[in-house]
Amino acid sequence: MKVEILPLRLPYVREGDDVAGLILRALQEQELDLEDGDVVVVTEKIVARAEGREVELDNVEPSAEARRLAEVTGKDPRVVQLILNEAREVLAAGENFIIVETRHGFVCANAGIDQSNVEEGRAKLLPLDPDRSAREIRRALEEATGRRLGVVIADSFGRSFRLGSVGVAIGCSGIVALLDRRGERDLLGRELKVTRVAVADCIASAANLVMGEGSEGIPVAIVRGTKVLGEGRARDLIRPKESDVFRR
Amino acid sequence: MKVEILPLRLPYVREGDDVAGLILRALQEQELDLEDGDVVVVTEKIVARAEGREVELDNVEPSAEARRLAEVTGKDPRVVQLILNEAREVLAAGENFIIVETRHGFVCANAGIDQSNVEEGRAKLLPLDPDRSAREIRRALEEATGRRLGVVIADSFGRSFRLGSVGVAIGCSGIVALLDRRGERDLLGRELKVTRVAVADCIASAANLVMGEGSEGIPVAIVRGTKVLGEGRARDLIRPKESDVFRR
Repeated sequence: MKVEILPLRLPYVREGDDVAGLILRALQEQELDLEDGDVVVVTEKIVARAEGREVELDNVEPSAEARRLAEVTGKDPRVVQLILNEAREVLAAGENFIIVETRHGFVCANAGIDQSNVEEGRAKLLPLDPDRSAREIRRALEEATGRRLGVVIADSFGRSFRLGSVGVAIGCSGIVALLDRRGERDLLGRELKVTRVAVADCIASAANLVMGEGSEGIPVAIVRGTKVLGEGRARDLIRPKESDVFRR
Repeated sequence: MKVEILPLRLPYVREGDDVAGLILRALQEQELDLEDGDVVVVTEKIVARAEGREVELDNVEPSAEARRLAEVTGKDPRVVQLILNEAREVLAAGENFIIVETRHGFVCANAGIDQSNVEEGRAKLLPLDPDRSAREIRRALEEATGRRLGVVIADSFGRSFRLGSVGVAIGCSGIVALLDRRGERDLLGRELKVTRVAVADCIASAANLVMGEGSEGIPVAIVRGTKVLGEGRARDLIRPKESDVFRR
């Protein structure tokens, strides 16, 4: 049973655009049909932009705390203010980065705030509720196609201990985000070492192989053949703070 | 340009087995041909087993330190001794886990030591030099097929901040492990936010979608269509301790 990852090119997405509608049109133009079980991976960038999560930096008034962190990090104090607005907790800060826990519970650099693929003088926040965004896109795609689908809203996060970014799921609908294999047996009948698999993150990283933030402009990928449809939310992937030895 | 991930079934691998030879035979039996640019992902489990990295626990004499950590964690003191033997540094320990930096520089639970898919009374260490293992398998596969290939030795690691394991590359040959995109531009001509992509880890996570540690017994996957051939080692993915805010 093979897995396929099909790239889907979209026009530049603007505030108010209907992402599901754009995906359906692009599928038609690129002569692709969705199949039962397909997982549609969408970069958070276009979801956030469509949802109007871009901010004009001139409208942001940095607080004293934002100015202090801007000095530590060398970042624009207005961007720092946006990061603080989106953060529940600041975990670490250094040269050009602030690692926070976002309002959603994700631990990432700069609260996922992005100035690439955004016009000068503006910044883009993460979607407000990416699990909900995923659900809405899934429903619209399922309704139009009659297929049973999954949707993942993906971002790229850096990591502790390892260099480079990988794909992560910040929103999910229609798939098992965290696969629980406890109780399953290995080839010799012994219990498995790895008992929970972050399936949604593996799918986001797989999609990362065809998607790109650069001038290639491929914000969507269809992941076919995974058999992961089910119930799950990206929030299932958040490790509770009290069980995280690197946060105590 | 789509990406495909093809599972490859292998017989149970034993010490002294020739992994590349087994892969070639399995390709033939399953009527698959390798193509230029294919990345062959191999689980570290079969590489380590073939390389004789299994240890008889009865031959391990736990030190006082191992006995102390065994009490803290509830682990077998002999397994703890093996973990300490494989570790440069212990970062954290708790109920049934010890997070260490391995001799290779990887930060992971229990030094990657595994008792699943290993006979009772034995434990399996990570390959001694997985980059070298990848190189040897690649050379044998390239020689037999005449194709230009990449090889990734993959494991599953847990993570800070997020639940569930994902695929990681602990050995690489013939591919760019860490893709540097600094200087590239986005759709609007601005610099990219994400500048280094852990391509080899994305490939390992993608392969994870078809591979399994369970009774399915699929220890190899062919990842086709990625255009990532080049020079790189899994060691390129290790974040230097002094640049890691969660280790200072």
